[in-house]
Amino acid sequence: MNFIEGGVTAPKGFRAAGVVAQIKNLQSTKKDCALIASDVPAAVAGVFTTNRVKAAPVQWCQGVCVRGIARAVFANSGNANACTGATGIGDAQATAERVALGLNIPVTEVCVLSTGVIGVPLPMDRIERGVDLAIAALSETGSPDSARAIMTTDTVPKEMAVEVALGGGVVRIGAIAKGAGMIAPNMATMLCVITTDAAIDAAALTALLKECAEVSFNRICVDNDMSTNDTLLCLANGRSGAGALDPATPDYLAFAGALKEVCIALARALVRDGEGASKFIEVEVEGAPSDADARAIARSIAMSQLCKTAFFGEDPNWGRIACAAGYAGVPFDASELSIWIEGLAVVRAGLPTPFEEAEAAALMKHPEINVRVSVGGGPGTCTYWTSDLSHDYVSINADYRT
Amino acid sequence: MNFIEGGVTAPKGFRAAGVVAQIKNLQSTKKDCALIASDVPAAVAGVFTTNRVKAAPVQWCQGVCVRGIARAVFANSGNANACTGATGIGDAQATAERVALGLNIPVTEVCVLSTGVIGVPLPMDRIERGVDLAIAALSETGSPDSARAIMTTDTVPKEMAVEVALGGGVVRIGAIAKGAGMIAPNMATMLCVITTDAAIDAAALTALLKECAEVSFNRICVDNDMSTNDTLLCLANGRSGAGALDPATPDYLAFAGALKEVCIALARALVRDGEGASKFIEVEVEGAPSDADARAIARSIAMSQLCKTAFFGEDPNWGRIACAAGYAGVPFDASELSIWIEGLAVVRAGLPTPFEEAEAAALMKHPEINVRVSVGGGPGTCTYWTSDLSHDYVSINADYRT
Repeated sequence: MNFIEGGVTAPKGFRAAGVVAQIKNLQSTKKDCALIASDVPAAVAGVFTTNRVKAAPVQWCQGVCVRGIARAVFANSGNANACTGATGIGDAQATAERVALGLNIPVTEVCVLSTGVIGVPLPMDRIERGVDLAIAALSETGSPDSARAIMTTDTVPKEMAVEVALGGGVVRIGAIAKGAGMIAPNMATMLCVITTDAAIDAAALTALLKECAEVSFNRICVDNDMSTNDTLLCLANGRSGAGALDPATPDYLAFAGALKEVCIALARALVRDGEGASKFIEVEVEGAPSDADARAIARSIAMSQLCKTAFFGEDPNWGRIACAAGYAGVPFDASELSIWIEGLAVVRAGLPTPFEEAEAAALMKHPEINVRVSVGGGPGTCTYWTSDLSHDYVSINADYRT
Repeated sequence: MNFIEGGVTAPKGFRAAGVVAQIKNLQSTKKDCALIASDVPAAVAGVFTTNRVKAAPVQWCQGVCVRGIARAVFANSGNANACTGATGIGDAQATAERVALGLNIPVTEVCVLSTGVIGVPLPMDRIERGVDLAIAALSETGSPDSARAIMTTDTVPKEMAVEVALGGGVVRIGAIAKGAGMIAPNMATMLCVITTDAAIDAAALTALLKECAEVSFNRICVDNDMSTNDTLLCLANGRSGAGALDPATPDYLAFAGALKEVCIALARALVRDGEGASKFIEVEVEGAPSDADARAIARSIAMSQLCKTAFFGEDPNWGRIACAAGYAGVPFDASELSIWIEGLAVVRAGLPTPFEEAEAAALMKHPEINVRVSVGGGPGTCTYWTSDLSHDYVSINADYRT
């Protein structure tokens, strides 16, 4: 697997665009409407927020994914079309209809995504203009524009593509994502659109995408809030000519591995750009009774405000890590707890080691910090990624409206 | 029920003390050892942290509570005696032995509590000196000193007492507590000691204390970390002469109501003194399928970093409240969601109301803010208390060691 240029338009048969439609307000000069289109019908799979309050576009996309075929994804930033009731549902459908009309494809094959302010109806005149401009701008080099158009509080666009040599030929996977955590004020959302020219049916793709999300986007936190709009979509149009991927074949496994790598790389990129984040933290848990138990412990540490402020303060505060591990709800023997910070053992068998405070403090100054926690002799492991909790986080989220 | 002066020594037959023993370091001039003693054996009940990593004194106290009789509670601040292995267990027992010897009571009737730095053995020479000084200082007016002695990052001591007229006579309940959240660096702990001169057996007291904790200390959060040392103890010595309290009698119910009120008042006091807290937030949830569901939604809102930074920023950000309600794991129909901030309806039936932004912003400037959330027509309700998330919180917890 090689990383290549091109983002969502790296795979064959995809075009993309990103345009300015002033969705948030009439002063806005930021690209805010993205369109990604496949030349031919593609199998589509989606993973969606489990929030009970689901934005209208999420509900629309779920319908498209049930049918399993998509030709286009339209996304706007600046307005989440969430908590907008029947009006919002109608607006999501009207957006899809405009795209379908312009591209001459069935409306049921158009996904729509929104991210931005909650509780305000979409400005449909500007959305329609955004659709028209985006259709006109579609190009095989449009990925960077589309990546920029879905950004909200992100500081950098997230775009990626890989190439995998399979027995049947070379396939490509491309992606754009936005997120900075689910943390912007009155805003929502992790969005990710993955394209591939591999041939795989919608059912297999759906199962695979869920697995990928589980080890990537479901293993990160910036804050701990899950948005009303979180959506991960994958379109597979088969244009590589590499032949259909049958589960359990070596080609399928190679493709699955590459898709997983792309998701993990994007998830890590989201954490790196977390709001106010000054550090990237990797939490590895091992020795738990099961992988699910390891995940619960890793998540507990990754979510702990005390651990996250200690990372910001560059304080090798193992007591907070031990404490967060202890309240994860997983049974383990505290006398078997060991903790390493950047490879330095700070706790062994439940007791602090005689480590040098100065050495540990120096390790905590690293921009990326690995925390390894062992809770016993069990087979369960999990890796989780998180950011620190900084003054900037509070400022960004408290002072947004002022 | 009347609030009265006197704290833990308001009930008959209790004496208390708080002394300086330089537990944290030899420069310390703060009171750091507290002792509360009953003139006669008292029934004792405890509610303890469910953290897998339990401090040595928690393990010791659990043993005392299994027997159900206590005569004294010794508490030190400055050192949590947590993650200290077999040494810590021995030190907790040695502390209890010193108290038992000095008061001429059985060692099995002495509770010990610790709060402070994790992973450092207790300085036993100074602890022993603290025990001796505290025994010598025991007095019927010692409650304020004991309340100060258990403080760590708290800015004010928490002390309380009430008087309840029962059919059989007047009984009193007194308490001291510390906490400021479970949020101090490398520190631990909510501690609360309640005394009463009511007569109630240990089994009934244990059941009642659990109920009280459930609607008070288990309904608050400052950050979301649960310490290795959290302990709530209640000693009932029967010295009021009001007669034994039998469950289901009017006297029992009156006593239970008073004990619950004391616990709720203390829990609210802990949130008010939360580290870096500038506001006190009450979250009321109604209309959920069950009380447990209502509790899950209230907790989700109370724990949300996004909601807490919005409170700090005085931003009437109902979208974050709706979002946090939605990911609590409780099924509800988003079109039945309504939200009130300080009585002002901001969301009705899933849609934002046309409220005046200026009016809502003015309400958010209140030092205490009530948030009411209705999720349908179910019978489930819950009230939860939390603080905002401020720059000071980050400073206190990131910069502690520097």
